[in-house]
Amino acid sequence: MLTLYSYWRSSASYRVRIALALKGLDYEYRPVHLVKDGGEQHAAGYRAINPEGRVPLLIDGDFKLGQSLAILRYLDARFPERPLVSAEPREAARAWQFCEAINADIQPLHNLGPLGYLSKTLGVDERQRETWIRHWIDRGLSALEAEVADQPLESAVFGDSPGIADCCLVPQVYAARRFGADLARYPRLMALAARLESLPAFIAAHPDQQPDAQPG
Amino acid sequence: MLTLYSYWRSSASYRVRIALALKGLDYEYRPVHLVKDGGEQHAAGYRAINPEGRVPLLIDGDFKLGQSLAILRYLDARFPERPLVSAEPREAARAWQFCEAINADIQPLHNLGPLGYLSKTLGVDERQRETWIRHWIDRGLSALEAEVADQPLESAVFGDSPGIADCCLVPQVYAARRFGADLARYPRLMALAARLESLPAFIAAHPDQQPDAQPG
Repeated sequence: MLTLYSYWRSSASYRVRIALALKGLDYEYRPVHLVKDGGEQHAAGYRAINPEGRVPLLIDGDFKLGQSLAILRYLDARFPERPLVSAEPREAARAWQFCEAINADIQPLHNLGPLGYLSKTLGVDERQRETWIRHWIDRGLSALEAEVADQPLESAVFGDSPGIADCCLVPQVYAARRFGADLARYPRLMALAARLESLPAFIAAHPDQQPDAQPG
Repeated sequence: MLTLYSYWRSSASYRVRIALALKGLDYEYRPVHLVKDGGEQHAAGYRAINPEGRVPLLIDGDFKLGQSLAILRYLDARFPERPLVSAEPREAARAWQFCEAINADIQPLHNLGPLGYLSKTLGVDERQRETWIRHWIDRGLSALEAEVADQPLESAVFGDSPGIADCCLVPQVYAARRFGADLARYPRLMALAARLESLPAFIAAHPDQQPDAQPG
């Protein structure tokens, strides 16, 4: 039995929920509230489980693992029946490049921690903070739109069925929408995201469907 | 023949140089100056090669690949003789977790782009910017020091010979030193980094040994 420590709106948690749903894996959902009381992820109880103080965290028996992309890779090795990564090294590499571009170049810059630091410690005002967020989202999604310009985007970023790149794209689009980014600039990515979002695995993994989701 | 677009002080480029050296692979080195003239990586010529406008970029025949961790993974699939990742899924997962914690939670926040944006667009002063840099380095390296607290750190972060985690640790330590972080807080990581830095592959990959290195 798998356990996932998750927060409904965390896009890294959302990636892992999509992967679990695509593979049809059951898991126990344990919410970690990233905002309440300064963030439950920083509390001693959770730090004892995950010294990084972050979600998601996957528990598989006596093994625990953090970092969403490491979790996606582990799930694919542990439950290979419905692969999320191509067996062909170049196809796999392009998909990982796509994921890392989101994981390293976009998401960290609009993560809760850095945004809180900008406001509270550096005194950056709300308007400037929005400029910062939209700048990194636009830089990152523009690059990804260019990366996929010469390929069909029919049912997945790469290949015929959703894989790791799709697990990363949809949560990034969700975050970009929340932050009011101008998504019309990325027509190919957006058309694909709309199709992905209508699939059962993506619906099940959506933040609003999680037990810790909060209204409005 | 492999070609690597690299910048001597880029820690993501440094990771790939270590991997290439550990595997004993020859490659052509093509420097991309990330600072001069606003950054050669943003110029149209380089953008045509890499739409992400970043280094490193690996060229392998007619295949090109960005994102350092995607490159490490590809090199291990393409040149499996001297593996950088364990074949055991849990050991591999822990190593990737370690790498992603650096690649997603530390390095992006002190990368050239965000630091430039903090200064030029948000008007954050030098002292505040240093506080920001050291905050993310300390948060990240403290978590990694805790992650490896219960294991021997003799010749590598994981296992008996350097692998992906070591390819990421040493460049992060190099960056932390440049930024004046208080590295005495991470005695286990630092003792290991000192041993790794004395190995031929790590010496060959060091920024100061690259053709585009600039004196002090």
